[in-house]
Amino acid sequence: MFALLNRNIKAVILDITGVLKDSGPHGGTPIKGSIEALNRLYSSGLHLRFCTNETTVTRHTLVSQLRSLGFTIDEEKVFPPIPAMCTILKDRNLRPHLLVHPDALPDFKDIDQSNTNCVVIGDATHQFTYENINRAFQCLMNFEKPILFSLGKGKYYQEDGELILDVGPFMKALEYATGVTAEIVGKPSLAFFNTVLNDIGISAHEAVMVGDDIVNDVGGAQACGLAGVLVRTGKYRKPDDNHPDVKPDAIFDNLEKFVDCLLQDKQ
Amino acid sequence: MFALLNRNIKAVILDITGVLKDSGPHGGTPIKGSIEALNRLYSSGLHLRFCTNETTVTRHTLVSQLRSLGFTIDEEKVFPPIPAMCTILKDRNLRPHLLVHPDALPDFKDIDQSNTNCVVIGDATHQFTYENINRAFQCLMNFEKPILFSLGKGKYYQEDGELILDVGPFMKALEYATGVTAEIVGKPSLAFFNTVLNDIGISAHEAVMVGDDIVNDVGGAQACGLAGVLVRTGKYRKPDDNHPDVKPDAIFDNLEKFVDCLLQDKQ
Repeated sequence: MFALLNRNIKAVILDITGVLKDSGPHGGTPIKGSIEALNRLYSSGLHLRFCTNETTVTRHTLVSQLRSLGFTIDEEKVFPPIPAMCTILKDRNLRPHLLVHPDALPDFKDIDQSNTNCVVIGDATHQFTYENINRAFQCLMNFEKPILFSLGKGKYYQEDGELILDVGPFMKALEYATGVTAEIVGKPSLAFFNTVLNDIGISAHEAVMVGDDIVNDVGGAQACGLAGVLVRTGKYRKPDDNHPDVKPDAIFDNLEKFVDCLLQDKQ
Repeated sequence: MFALLNRNIKAVILDITGVLKDSGPHGGTPIKGSIEALNRLYSSGLHLRFCTNETTVTRHTLVSQLRSLGFTIDEEKVFPPIPAMCTILKDRNLRPHLLVHPDALPDFKDIDQSNTNCVVIGDATHQFTYENINRAFQCLMNFEKPILFSLGKGKYYQEDGELILDVGPFMKALEYATGVTAEIVGKPSLAFFNTVLNDIGISAHEAVMVGDDIVNDVGGAQACGLAGVLVRTGKYRKPDDNHPDVKPDAIFDNLEKFVDCLLQDKQ
């Protein structure tokens, strides 16, 4: 039993960007204390998974970057939206027009993209050109039954000390223009969290999600029955402490402080 | 009394793009029959004004283009959003960060743009780059009291036979990212329609608005007490005939057919 969360926690699910590392060139930079904190979690015997909305690189590249930064991490423990998206596309026989980051394209290599019948948008960053946003819009307007998938719905993240728009605002632009409601793949989707829980083989109330996104990490996890912990790193901003809709189960200055408290509290 | 609208109509207010002309290079192309239809309206003795959300050129250029296409039109009868926006900025002592079309910038020449304390977005077209959208977002996040103005909130328009995103989707993107609700300047804002009515010196029920935008022209005018007529030109699409929220007072294939019917009906 962990007094901190008043639950019998068996698994810790960590967001990556903003919790383990900050965004930036060459995979970004580790957040102070997070490498050691992660190693202490491994030693604790708790299950550990990584649940990220990262779509600007392949899963393989993401894990390679994290290792080169000093993190201990295995690819099969990392759950980004694109593999989940590919499963849905295959299951529903959908052929996507992709508006995603070029560095993530290899993760779609097995997906038929001819004669498209849906649109998938991810955090395309500099590929969010006026031309590309218009092209995705025109695809949706031309489909008989328009389907839009969004790989997460984050508002923004922090990169090199600046706040940068995430995929969510561009999803909203397409939703408004077309009248289509996007299906979210990634956090905070229930199905996405359940994929991670099923992989561990535990119930939602036995897991805690730690993230820097008050809505998609913390609120999303809580809505699925997990405990939700906010860290004051990454995109965290002061007003998140008193968010009108989401009350975290706990708030910590960073992952290190969370791990200190969690493991001390273990009874 | 005009039997068509069952009102004592004294003024006709026309949208420009999609009613008089289609978008395109060099000011676009006249819509078939619209030049003559406009001339017949002038001859009828009805008041005539032009109410447009056009923000990709200055008012002066817009009127010059219309004249070169063959339309009879005076600059002081044309009401675009930017002059109204400039009045608001001066009245409220606001200094804008502009995300607008470069060709419209001269209409902001008298506006102080130093030490910005609000964001104004218009139909910036190719200036809606990832960098520029991020810059507007960062401005809003840095303001102590963020204010966002949007010059209209149109979803899309037609250009060279293709549907193209208007300012509205980008407004929605910034609203979602920042949590700020935009103030609309232009159609369908009540204040904007009232400026036109005041210029004529009539009441709302004595005017009819003719447009190709079911929501912003027709619905916007009706919400302000004007009659709202939809024409099946410009961005019109078949589902607009049965819009869930807006029921036009009348629908015509084009401006010519509207004028035929209006003037025949005059009793």
